[in-house]
Amino acid sequence: MAEIILDSKAYKHNLNLIHSHINSHNKSNVEIAAVLKDNAYGHGLKEIATIAADYGIKSVFVKNYNEAMQIYEFFPQVTALYGMPQGDFATNIAFVIHDKEHISALPQGTKVELKVNVGMNRNGIEPSELESFIQAILQKKLELIGVFSHNGYGDDLDSAFFHTQSNFAKLKQEVLHLSQKYGFAPPRFHSLSTSGAIRVASEGGITDDLVRIGIGAYGYLDVSFENPISDKLQKVASLYADRVSTRFLDKGERIGYSGCTTLESPQVVSTYDIGYGDGFFRVSENHKVYIANGLQILPRSSMDCFSCFCDEPRICVFSDVTHLAKAFGTISYEILTHLSPSIKRTII
Amino acid sequence: MAEIILDSKAYKHNLNLIHSHINSHNKSNVEIAAVLKDNAYGHGLKEIATIAADYGIKSVFVKNYNEAMQIYEFFPQVTALYGMPQGDFATNIAFVIHDKEHISALPQGTKVELKVNVGMNRNGIEPSELESFIQAILQKKLELIGVFSHNGYGDDLDSAFFHTQSNFAKLKQEVLHLSQKYGFAPPRFHSLSTSGAIRVASEGGITDDLVRIGIGAYGYLDVSFENPISDKLQKVASLYADRVSTRFLDKGERIGYSGCTTLESPQVVSTYDIGYGDGFFRVSENHKVYIANGLQILPRSSMDCFSCFCDEPRICVFSDVTHLAKAFGTISYEILTHLSPSIKRTII
Repeated sequence: MAEIILDSKAYKHNLNLIHSHINSHNKSNVEIAAVLKDNAYGHGLKEIATIAADYGIKSVFVKNYNEAMQIYEFFPQVTALYGMPQGDFATNIAFVIHDKEHISALPQGTKVELKVNVGMNRNGIEPSELESFIQAILQKKLELIGVFSHNGYGDDLDSAFFHTQSNFAKLKQEVLHLSQKYGFAPPRFHSLSTSGAIRVASEGGITDDLVRIGIGAYGYLDVSFENPISDKLQKVASLYADRVSTRFLDKGERIGYSGCTTLESPQVVSTYDIGYGDGFFRVSENHKVYIANGLQILPRSSMDCFSCFCDEPRICVFSDVTHLAKAFGTISYEILTHLSPSIKRTII
Repeated sequence: MAEIILDSKAYKHNLNLIHSHINSHNKSNVEIAAVLKDNAYGHGLKEIATIAADYGIKSVFVKNYNEAMQIYEFFPQVTALYGMPQGDFATNIAFVIHDKEHISALPQGTKVELKVNVGMNRNGIEPSELESFIQAILQKKLELIGVFSHNGYGDDLDSAFFHTQSNFAKLKQEVLHLSQKYGFAPPRFHSLSTSGAIRVASEGGITDDLVRIGIGAYGYLDVSFENPISDKLQKVASLYADRVSTRFLDKGERIGYSGCTTLESPQVVSTYDIGYGDGFFRVSENHKVYIANGLQILPRSSMDCFSCFCDEPRICVFSDVTHLAKAFGTISYEILTHLSPSIKRTII
């Protein structure tokens, strides 16, 4: 049965690496928060939550109410980035305000974080709306525990990155001013994910209270700027597939849907139990895709299996998805997040 | 909160259409079995099982033990196509034999179906191994309820389709002969999925006991031959996304990661809560992807959301994935099966 092996030491190594890099460049201690959204970037929400909690992570970010309810007992603070509660919830779950409707949807006393757009023009409120949102939050007696943004230029050498950072710095001053004016406790501030955090730490120091570490913790950091971290990260997930059946085929025989692969010489061929129905991308005649040992996945792969010139009982499909992302014209995040939650996960 | 709406009338309409087509061309009644593997081709296993059971389906095919255990109470006969049991199981679950190891792994009395390779060269045993496998099955006192194959040429005008059918016809004769020789009840025979069943029904009549209807029941049949069914099928799944936030942006402003979209005129822009972390394919600057109302998904889409020039509170992302499959260079099956099981499903 196919299996994703999760290397807990790799996850902790990556967090240590990022933590040391950030703290060697910063006077004050910046909290490392773990991003566990989208089934922990496809790795397995409960499994990665277990590892992160064991490491000592205190604050995490998940996709929504359903994800928060699965792991709220593991951490002191859980923030659901999107959507409103769909039923009862624990008091350590905060919901994110992107819109006035969200304020009216939440019961009094709920912890909230306010998302502000400082240049990505995607989610959150506008900086000009800050005071009116804070007034509405206070009026509804919600507890404002955070004000945050997301810098969408962290991976690039685009000057928009610094412009966005400068916008967030101004926003923080304004929030602190409003905190004095209306008498509420200053919330925590955060704006950086892995790439931005690595960059700002190197170039001057992080002044936020926490950084949200997602992809870097899983071992990936594909950025267009030089940094001392990318090469030292270790991949957390490896995917293994088990053999369904094996046969000997002659030259000229055809394999799979539409007989897409034709043998140029006699071969031992086996099928393995990973297909595009498992969220692994479909290998068609337009792709050249190789598993970890260098063997080709013969086109076309099926919904539940693929064929290889091999008769090993178990093979490693990948221990790093970088080359798969290239082969499928996408990014490592998409390869990972698409992996079906129904594939067995095992922590080592 | 994003939602997949499942049209139960469309599913039943499709089964009626396929059933009528098959029975108008066949003297004996051919059983329509439903293929519910891979979370019912991404639609939602329990939801589609509910609709199929209500329609009167008696036999279903699922991916593995875990899927079988979720829906075995809905149907008299459930077959797990891949893998062995991972714990206790109900007596109406059959497992598929592809290899001698599978026979030794199953407890006495277990129902099994024997998969035979008749030309796709992917899964199953070879026809030459038939007698030795049947002997081993009988010796282990497993109950052989089916012998089947899969015609991998159903979608194409390839003569290999008929060659494969002819191989399966010979195989059936041999199984019936062995049934006499060893004194076991003749098993059920099946070799055709939707496309093959439509084709064989039109061209002479199906002699198998059942057909396995998967993609056609969900409303898709993209085949290279003319047939009276494709145009009349109705799509079962529609995906809806809800607005996260809305803003007014000026000419020249940039949206999303790396500011990939730049506005040529002032626009109202909203984000909606579907991203590639939901299994919906990632929209990059290399794609032109449109939602059901014709609006473009602005590149790049994120893990949890995408942007559109729109301010509707809820939008239909798709009611048909055919154009999405083309835009992403794949087939409708892959678009559907990748949809995350964590998206809410609602049956109408």
